[in-house]
Amino acid sequence: MKITKLKDSSIFLWFSFFCLLLSPSTSFARTTLPARFPSSFVSPEKLSSLSSSEKNQLYRTRYFTQILDHFNFYPKSYQTFQQRYLINDTHWGGAKSNAPIFVYTGNEGNIEWFAQNTGFLYETAPHFKALIVFIEHRFYGKSIPYGGNKEVAHSNATTLGYLSSTQALADYASLIIDLKKNLSATDSPVVVFGGSYGGMLAAWFRLKYPHVTIGALASSAPILNFENITSPYSFTNIVTQDFRSESENCYKVIKGSWEQIESTADQPGGLELLRNSFKICKNYISADYLEGWLRTAFTYTAMTDYPTPSNFLSPMPAFPVKQMCAAIDDPTTGNDTFKKLYGAASVYYNYSGTATCFDLDDDSDPHGLGGWYWQACTEMIMPTSGNTEESIFPASEWKYKYRAASCKRSFGIEPRPLWITTEFGGHDIERVLKRYGSNIIFFNGLRDPWSGGG
Amino acid sequence: MKITKLKDSSIFLWFSFFCLLLSPSTSFARTTLPARFPSSFVSPEKLSSLSSSEKNQLYRTRYFTQILDHFNFYPKSYQTFQQRYLINDTHWGGAKSNAPIFVYTGNEGNIEWFAQNTGFLYETAPHFKALIVFIEHRFYGKSIPYGGNKEVAHSNATTLGYLSSTQALADYASLIIDLKKNLSATDSPVVVFGGSYGGMLAAWFRLKYPHVTIGALASSAPILNFENITSPYSFTNIVTQDFRSESENCYKVIKGSWEQIESTADQPGGLELLRNSFKICKNYISADYLEGWLRTAFTYTAMTDYPTPSNFLSPMPAFPVKQMCAAIDDPTTGNDTFKKLYGAASVYYNYSGTATCFDLDDDSDPHGLGGWYWQACTEMIMPTSGNTEESIFPASEWKYKYRAASCKRSFGIEPRPLWITTEFGGHDIERVLKRYGSNIIFFNGLRDPWSGGG
Repeated sequence: MKITKLKDSSIFLWFSFFCLLLSPSTSFARTTLPARFPSSFVSPEKLSSLSSSEKNQLYRTRYFTQILDHFNFYPKSYQTFQQRYLINDTHWGGAKSNAPIFVYTGNEGNIEWFAQNTGFLYETAPHFKALIVFIEHRFYGKSIPYGGNKEVAHSNATTLGYLSSTQALADYASLIIDLKKNLSATDSPVVVFGGSYGGMLAAWFRLKYPHVTIGALASSAPILNFENITSPYSFTNIVTQDFRSESENCYKVIKGSWEQIESTADQPGGLELLRNSFKICKNYISADYLEGWLRTAFTYTAMTDYPTPSNFLSPMPAFPVKQMCAAIDDPTTGNDTFKKLYGAASVYYNYSGTATCFDLDDDSDPHGLGGWYWQACTEMIMPTSGNTEESIFPASEWKYKYRAASCKRSFGIEPRPLWITTEFGGHDIERVLKRYGSNIIFFNGLRDPWSGGG
Repeated sequence: MKITKLKDSSIFLWFSFFCLLLSPSTSFARTTLPARFPSSFVSPEKLSSLSSSEKNQLYRTRYFTQILDHFNFYPKSYQTFQQRYLINDTHWGGAKSNAPIFVYTGNEGNIEWFAQNTGFLYETAPHFKALIVFIEHRFYGKSIPYGGNKEVAHSNATTLGYLSSTQALADYASLIIDLKKNLSATDSPVVVFGGSYGGMLAAWFRLKYPHVTIGALASSAPILNFENITSPYSFTNIVTQDFRSESENCYKVIKGSWEQIESTADQPGGLELLRNSFKICKNYISADYLEGWLRTAFTYTAMTDYPTPSNFLSPMPAFPVKQMCAAIDDPTTGNDTFKKLYGAASVYYNYSGTATCFDLDDDSDPHGLGGWYWQACTEMIMPTSGNTEESIFPASEWKYKYRAASCKRSFGIEPRPLWITTEFGGHDIERVLKRYGSNIIFFNGLRDPWSGGG
């Protein structure tokens, strides 16, 4: 079980996605959101039964020589890198019959992780005799510019500068066109798929590259979570509602816990009490860290509240929000708020029962999501972490200036909060989609906190 | 009267557009085409009667702080420059009535030149109570990055690297969105207009930014003159046909002249004879230069074969191709090919009658078109200068390798011949346009040599 603490002073940790929600004491943590909102394509019941080596046989791994900068032509822009993609042609009808190609437009992480958790494509492809291709997003997994050297690529704004959504889309276009040529399949229609950020990319790809793809399925893709299009309270309102719909008591206990944690931490011996209550391994704890750790559990569980057991972010039972509330409402815990919360947190952090204690100092990043912090500091300015007075989390306002200041400190650059809507549309996008029939299917679970912007 | 000679060794001249056709002895001249194919929007009869100061009153000049690099986020990408735009609100119905905005997406030159030669917008705008905005293309006119220092901006591949069509489109989107906000006119529909390269930009803008514009009028926009979509012989075939349709003799005289010029040049005293025949001012002449000078006259006249007198590239009579052939067919010139050619060339170079001799050494660039050579060396790889055996020009093949070698010498970079079709579509673009109804009107005169790719 891997858990992260926040090291505000460490530039390294700024790249660790996991920190984003963990400490509400930092301005960034207050104003940002988790990157790895998972895809509702995840069909865990099917894939989770496979062994590791079986999963690796789902596809073959290939590499494509990709250009560093598609949009400029100065000498450095011509540098190339090896972009990884995974391919499964088991059911493909072949080029001669113009059988389709299903392309997963990779998100902010190791593409194998998505390829091993996106059952939807494997289930659907045989019906269409489709070729399956998962393309890894630049700067993630093994698709790292600068000779594959991640330390260099992720070291500062100058090298990270090429990590952007538009470059990623142009990568996909270049790779798909080249792959089709090589397969003599230029007439095979391409459908793109993606979940969460990958879903945004799939939708945008269809908008920007209609000559490359005939349609997109975008799952849990909050393309409207930019600027002032969607309320900044929408996300946590849905998290709140997810828990409140299970039981009013569950909601109240969680809502009341934050003040209790803080007042306990302020008392002599209070931190030790908290450490023991939540089985924190090392003597590394503060109210902020603990609160961040709990917020992560509640938020990510709301995002992955699947009706089946799953193992996308961590191993969890079916209906995990219900399970969390059951732990909180458990009469055997009496009035012991910490015991209730610990029970709830364990649903997310220790459903497998193997963890004996939790490490808030763990900054590992098993799925390679580190680049998201750069993206959240440049173009992915999604005001989603406001909390109303009714919120299950402490009331707070989304403030762009906190994000900007934190990004300035980390990278020396200012975000571009208007860019995404300039490039891809915002308020007008619904009109555009309706009027010109775009063959994009957006789907969201209504209990998904991201559905507000989806 | 300004005419350019080719200084192959001078990097400066590589930036001068005028050289592109002037010397068929260089590989580049053999394999490229004029950039400044003019717009059929030009409504010269209306505008040409205005004085210089009256023309300057057609609009007010404004500047917008534009970002250097929209698609990347490394520190240098944040540099800004002042982008010029021209605005005319004489007939605008205003924001309250959601009156439309007509935007001319600037081409490869000084925007004032286009604004003073695009009568169509001034004629049309009053009927729609439209605001008129002409936006200058980055790196042209006064819209120069690097503090407006053109010498720096155009000095090498590192600084020119940001001169690209995708950056220009993102410039237009950013400027339009900001302008509409400032005018409180976010609901005013935007229609984009453009001719030649500006027409390609208008069409592509509609494809890529449907949330910013409801439609495009693209005049003489050869978006299919890329890769192998349109025959590389199409352009000169139409030039040939334009002259041949006037008279078979006209075609034959021009077609036969090239060999005659070359054999004359090879004889003792031959260059002097040519210099006198064509009234070349200085002792700066070669068969190649003279041929290039004549090709320019024939090609550009075919491109601006308007039914009215015009002054876009140079002052010309109505139906100038007909006038050229009349000079060639003039019985008073007997069998004197050079006299015939000189008469024809004068229609293009000296219709005003003020030039007493012609300067092949003149490399001035009055309309600021110099940046096109960079564009023709990076993304604008349009195979259009092939000549069949039937061509009015000497037979030749389009060869990418000549372009590539010449660009390598000039800038140290390799063109990206597949990029435009990757980004904007190629073979598939007609399907895309037909299927999804794009509100793009393409129009071409069929005698326009660019209509083959339009």
